[in-house]
Amino acid sequence: MYIPTMDDMMAAHERIKPYVHRTPVLTSTFMNDLTGAELFFKCENFQKAGAFKVRGASNAVFGLPDDMLAKGVATHSSGNHALSLSYAAGRRGITCTVVMPCTAPQAKKDAVIGYGGKIVECAPSTSSREAIFAEVIKETGAEFVHPYNDPRVIAGQGTCSRELIEQVDNLDAVIAPIGGGGMISGTCLTLSNLAPNVKIYAAEPEQADDAARSFKAGHIIADDAPETVADGLKVPLKELTWHFVSNHVTDILTASEDEIIEAMKLIWKRMKIVMEPSSAVPLATILKNKKLFAGKRVGVIITGGNVDLDHLPWMKV
Amino acid sequence: MYIPTMDDMMAAHERIKPYVHRTPVLTSTFMNDLTGAELFFKCENFQKAGAFKVRGASNAVFGLPDDMLAKGVATHSSGNHALSLSYAAGRRGITCTVVMPCTAPQAKKDAVIGYGGKIVECAPSTSSREAIFAEVIKETGAEFVHPYNDPRVIAGQGTCSRELIEQVDNLDAVIAPIGGGGMISGTCLTLSNLAPNVKIYAAEPEQADDAARSFKAGHIIADDAPETVADGLKVPLKELTWHFVSNHVTDILTASEDEIIEAMKLIWKRMKIVMEPSSAVPLATILKNKKLFAGKRVGVIITGGNVDLDHLPWMKV
Repeated sequence: MYIPTMDDMMAAHERIKPYVHRTPVLTSTFMNDLTGAELFFKCENFQKAGAFKVRGASNAVFGLPDDMLAKGVATHSSGNHALSLSYAAGRRGITCTVVMPCTAPQAKKDAVIGYGGKIVECAPSTSSREAIFAEVIKETGAEFVHPYNDPRVIAGQGTCSRELIEQVDNLDAVIAPIGGGGMISGTCLTLSNLAPNVKIYAAEPEQADDAARSFKAGHIIADDAPETVADGLKVPLKELTWHFVSNHVTDILTASEDEIIEAMKLIWKRMKIVMEPSSAVPLATILKNKKLFAGKRVGVIITGGNVDLDHLPWMKV
Repeated sequence: MYIPTMDDMMAAHERIKPYVHRTPVLTSTFMNDLTGAELFFKCENFQKAGAFKVRGASNAVFGLPDDMLAKGVATHSSGNHALSLSYAAGRRGITCTVVMPCTAPQAKKDAVIGYGGKIVECAPSTSSREAIFAEVIKETGAEFVHPYNDPRVIAGQGTCSRELIEQVDNLDAVIAPIGGGGMISGTCLTLSNLAPNVKIYAAEPEQADDAARSFKAGHIIADDAPETVADGLKVPLKELTWHFVSNHVTDILTASEDEIIEAMKLIWKRMKIVMEPSSAVPLATILKNKKLFAGKRVGVIITGGNVDLDHLPWMKV
C-alpha cells in the first residue's frame, strides 16, 4: 500500500491548477451568531463538475503516463466521482467508462454523458457491479481510478485544505463530511504536514455511522447499504483512508437525518448557496456540539452542490 | 421632483459601506457557452438582508438628520424593501414600521421582525394599505421611505453598478430586472455618468410588462395587480424612475413565466446559487435575444435571493 506524501499533494496542486477552480471561502454573520464559532465555508459546490472530487480525478487523469492514454480510465460510481472523472478525461481527451446501476437517476447519467463519459449499466447490486466492472477493465484495459482508496485521488483532495489555510489564517479546526474518507484523508495529509495544530473533525450521518464506529473500535467496520439522505456518504472506509483517519482525526461526530436536512435548508436560506445534503452534515454536527467549537475558528468544507432540484429532501419531511 | 445626482450616489456609497457587502461577481463557462456572450453576474443575492434593496434603504436611514431619528422610518412593502429598511433601521437603532397585507407570507413577517421591524397589518387592497399607512405616519411622524420612487433610494441602488464597473472592465451592456424601476434608475444614474457607452437593458415578465409598454408609449402605463412568478416586479413605474428609464434605457425585453422559471432553475443548477424568480428575468431575456448579446461583455444583476424554499416555482409547473 503506497501512502501519498506531502510532495504528492504539492505535485497534484501544480498538475490540476489549469482544470479546477480555487474555490471561494464564504462567511456568514448569521451562522457565527448561531453557533458561537467563527466559521469559514470552503465552497467546493462552486468547483468544476460541482464537487471537490474533480481534484482527485484530475490528478489521476493528468498524471497518467502517455503510453496509458489510449486505453483511457474507468470507474464505478453513481455520484460525483463519475462526473468528475468524466470531466477530467474529457479535458485530457481520453475515454472514460463509468459502470453505473441501471437505477441511477437519469440526471446523473445525463451529466456523465454531458462531460463525455461512457456509461455501462449494471444491476443495482455489488455482485453485478463487480462482474460488469471486471469485464470493462478486461475489454478496455482502462486504468481504474477508485473514488477514494487511491493515493492519486487522496493527494488531489488534499489540495482543497491547502487552499483553505492559504485563504484563512489561524484556523483552530477543519471539519468535513466522511463517507469513504477521501476528502478527510486528503485533509489529514495536508494539515498534518502544513498546519499540525489544526484539529481535524469528520462529520457523518447517524444512519451511516460506520466510520464513527470504526474509529471507536480501532478497525474498519463496513455497513451493508446504509440509508441516508446524505447519499455521498454511504460508502465504507478502505485501508488507505483508514490509515489517515486512524492516525490524524481528532473525532468523528454524527447527526440525525432531520438535523442534516435542517442544516442544509438553513445554509440555502441564509447563505444563498445550493449544496448537497452530504455537505450539510458538518454544520449539523457543529450545531449539536456548540461547546466544542465555541470561540474557535473553524474551516467547514462544503463538498459539493449536485442536487436534484425536483426532489429536495425537505419536500419529503 | 428632485433628481438624484452623481454626487448623491458617491455620497451614498461612502455612507452605506459599513452596512452592506461589496458583493462578488460570478462567471460561468456553461452560461457563456449557452448564450454566446460573456456574462458577469453581480450577486446581490449575497447582499445583507438578501437583496440590493438594502443599499437604498441604508442610504435613506443613515442619511437621516439627528433630529428626525426619534420618530423613525416607515414604509409599505411585503417584499425585500421591508426587510432592508428594517435591517438598516435596526443597525442605526431607530424604529421601523412596515405596513404589510395580513395575507403576506409568515416567513416575510418573521424576517421583518427578525431584523427588528414593527409590522402593522392592512387588508390586501390598495385602499386599506393607503388608509392604514396614513394613520401610521400621522401617529408616529415617521419618515416615509418609498421602495423606489425616492432620490435617496435610487442613489443607493446606483452603488451596485459602480461596484460592477470597478470589478469588470470594458462591459458592453448591463441588464437588470425592472419592476418599479429603482435598480434600473440607479444603474442609469451611475452608468450615464461613469460609463456612458455601456448600454442599459431592463428585463421584465411578459405578464407584468407595464414598463415595456410605457417605454414604447412614451408615458407611464400602470397595470392593476399583474400576476407573475417574479413577485418583486409587479409594481409600476413612478415619475422619478420614469425619468431615468425614458432617458437612459436602450430597451426593455420581456420573457414568459415558463422562460423565467427555466432560467432560474438553470442558474440554481449550474451556478449553485439561490436567487429569486425576479433575478432570473435578465437571463431569460438574454436566452431569447442571443443575437443582441452575442460576443458582448454583459453585466447581469442578480437582484436578490429571498425565496420560499418550500414553494419553489418549478414545483407548480
